[in-house]
Amino acid sequence: MPKKRLVVIGGVAAGMSAASKARRMDKELQIEVYTDENYISYAGCGLPYYIQGLIEEEQSLVARTKEQFNKQGIQVYMGHRALSIDSSDKTIVVSDPQDNKRVVSYDKLVIATGARAVIPGFAREKQWNNLFTVTTIPSSRQIKELMETKNAKNAVIIGGGYIGLEMAEALAAYQADITLVQRPQQVLRSMDEDMAKLVEEHLLSHKVKVKTGEDVKALAGEGSITKVITDKNEYPADLVILAVGVQPNSEIARDAGVELGVKNAIKVNRYMETNLPDIYAAGDCAVGYHLLYEKDAYVPLGTTANKQGKIAGENAAGGRAKFAGIIGTTIIKVMNIEIGRTGLSTREAEMLGKQVMPIKVDTRTKADYYPGAEPMTVKLLVEQDTQKLVGAQLVGGTGAGKRIDVLAAAVQLGLTPYELAELDLSYAPPFSPVWDPVLVAANVAVGKLDKKKD
Amino acid sequence: MPKKRLVVIGGVAAGMSAASKARRMDKELQIEVYTDENYISYAGCGLPYYIQGLIEEEQSLVARTKEQFNKQGIQVYMGHRALSIDSSDKTIVVSDPQDNKRVVSYDKLVIATGARAVIPGFAREKQWNNLFTVTTIPSSRQIKELMETKNAKNAVIIGGGYIGLEMAEALAAYQADITLVQRPQQVLRSMDEDMAKLVEEHLLSHKVKVKTGEDVKALAGEGSITKVITDKNEYPADLVILAVGVQPNSEIARDAGVELGVKNAIKVNRYMETNLPDIYAAGDCAVGYHLLYEKDAYVPLGTTANKQGKIAGENAAGGRAKFAGIIGTTIIKVMNIEIGRTGLSTREAEMLGKQVMPIKVDTRTKADYYPGAEPMTVKLLVEQDTQKLVGAQLVGGTGAGKRIDVLAAAVQLGLTPYELAELDLSYAPPFSPVWDPVLVAANVAVGKLDKKKD
Repeated sequence: MPKKRLVVIGGVAAGMSAASKARRMDKELQIEVYTDENYISYAGCGLPYYIQGLIEEEQSLVARTKEQFNKQGIQVYMGHRALSIDSSDKTIVVSDPQDNKRVVSYDKLVIATGARAVIPGFAREKQWNNLFTVTTIPSSRQIKELMETKNAKNAVIIGGGYIGLEMAEALAAYQADITLVQRPQQVLRSMDEDMAKLVEEHLLSHKVKVKTGEDVKALAGEGSITKVITDKNEYPADLVILAVGVQPNSEIARDAGVELGVKNAIKVNRYMETNLPDIYAAGDCAVGYHLLYEKDAYVPLGTTANKQGKIAGENAAGGRAKFAGIIGTTIIKVMNIEIGRTGLSTREAEMLGKQVMPIKVDTRTKADYYPGAEPMTVKLLVEQDTQKLVGAQLVGGTGAGKRIDVLAAAVQLGLTPYELAELDLSYAPPFSPVWDPVLVAANVAVGKLDKKKD
Repeated sequence: MPKKRLVVIGGVAAGMSAASKARRMDKELQIEVYTDENYISYAGCGLPYYIQGLIEEEQSLVARTKEQFNKQGIQVYMGHRALSIDSSDKTIVVSDPQDNKRVVSYDKLVIATGARAVIPGFAREKQWNNLFTVTTIPSSRQIKELMETKNAKNAVIIGGGYIGLEMAEALAAYQADITLVQRPQQVLRSMDEDMAKLVEEHLLSHKVKVKTGEDVKALAGEGSITKVITDKNEYPADLVILAVGVQPNSEIARDAGVELGVKNAIKVNRYMETNLPDIYAAGDCAVGYHLLYEKDAYVPLGTTANKQGKIAGENAAGGRAKFAGIIGTTIIKVMNIEIGRTGLSTREAEMLGKQVMPIKVDTRTKADYYPGAEPMTVKLLVEQDTQKLVGAQLVGGTGAGKRIDVLAAAVQLGLTPYELAELDLSYAPPFSPVWDPVLVAANVAVGKLDKKKD
């Protein structure tokens, strides 16, 4: 009997996680990975830090090489673009680097084609040599080279989401004059406005010109952009970073009859199965079940991609693993502050028709007297009906960020502030005030709830 | 009708928390605090850092001054020693700084007399001017002065618990030649031996001579100690720190007929009530209910003292708050590593007759390629019967420590590794690898449990 073959399209987080997990599950399985990129298994989330100059060697972004995968019996075909999927035949067509087409049959297929940057209309009019998205190692290398040659004094970042903000930190390392411009009225749309405001203030204090509520209308210049033109202003530009979001690479799936879901991401159930037999999808090209939405959401993140890929690989190899779902936990560092969020924002809660009680406390990251203690703001959102914690956000100095994890656990497990306040959390002066900021916030929430009872 | 009077004995964490909470509960209550010290509301946990020179101003250790308390209508009597309690009369006898005795009546009494350092026999034979415990601001100031004058080249720390280790860091800042000697075979007896070993290795790499399994027999010298003599060696000493544990200041309570519990700490229920009417106890002088022991334990810690004090104050003022209990979560920084533990150690599990499965993983604090990523070891203890996580320990570089909080939540809430592995924890390269060390450990535990099923 010939060996069964698992074919994976995509060689980054979800794809390589799927291949690796399938190999661990089944030593006999033939595993082939096709990717149109010339890098595999690289840390997309690390690109801003590579640009910043914090990571010397490009190669260190690569978790494992093609050779390492080969040794495990995972054949990786780089520069191979998957052109189509035929689910009745159980084949895919790929073109190799010399543009030769080839038909590859599969027993199981994992689609892990990832996402690509959204390119708005104004950026599609021409080809420019100083307009970049932050998506691949080669494009990041170009940004880095441009910054290092110091030709880029004026940098304009379009988009104030995670990548936009990380790029503000990265470019600030080159003493660039940075303008961050975006249409929404606040940066970090996944946060509440008041919390995002703290981030904006921090950016301003680091001389990043934050221009919210401005609509980019055009890019001016020949060959190189020289100006970014919005509905309100013009900004000189030697370099433009485009970071207005990503969209799933789901066309190849759609064309094969795979059903798409929210935001055109590939619809999968919690076993990472698509609507077609033996075809799985995982990572930034697919939806993720949101435990608080109680339905699918599109929140493309590295952690989710790894988790989903692992599940797709396990199930493609005969297992029956189930994706736990997400609650939208994220963390980001921008200059000297750390920002975390989990669960629902006020906006999301409203969207879901949930009434929430906000609690916001200003505390410190460490014991007041301990060197390096910095301000930290924690916001909790408690659902009025159930008294459950449904969301949490924090902004603060070094050490603030990872506190989002215990809050994420609280949200995911449906704790009330009463239960959160009862947790025996750690304390020592180098780590927190005697009442950890998480407990301070929980106690204030408890106080508010008790008052309402009276 | 005369105002009701709350009397608090003790002016540090539990005492002042009780007084403050009682004031917030009842604006009319007359509140008097008696303490034999000349400092109140100071951060005992901050003393090693003050000695280390990280905290310039002694005063910054004091959270709130006598005057600030007075403004809230909390009368603080410093240098007033409580001599006895008469529960039938509802009075206490105090002696003021001039040794005048005074009878003070109470309607409610909170005993928050704290703990004192255990002084073993060998240290009680003589008076020495270079033997210290780390318990008060004055004794800490003396240590600091001795180190600053550089007369203390050879420092011997007796005891390798939290304070002993924090003092090793503090004295290392003065380039002292440090010997840490103790009877137990491992430092940090609340950790498992293998995890404690990591800490010992770290101390050794910082030139702290760790001598475990050695019994101090005598201190030699006249006026000043010159040598610490153990059953195996002799160590030259210019300064000796005694940190072999603490014991509750419960004698005044005992003599008044208050029942004592484990380790002679004052027995309280979860409302902080003693066996005598209208007498509460809280903090380092009292027991704390341990959720995993399912009985009282004596784990004197600053957080617990604050929490218990708050509850005693609330209930003394007519409320009915209940202490949530502890699970033994602690965190400590020693030189460049962070150490956390929560729940049961293997030793404690054995003591309770619980069979546990250990899982230990070596990971990194941040994404491998991100600057400052350091090794980190996480150990989980999963109860065989219930598959619940009953304990967790970690040792690692900067950023490792506070991860104990999400593990503490998992232990306190009785999560299995399956549930822990499903948590949507945060990831970004400056904060963690794409699989957070907590999730890596949980996944390894899941793998082990699955294997046992097969």
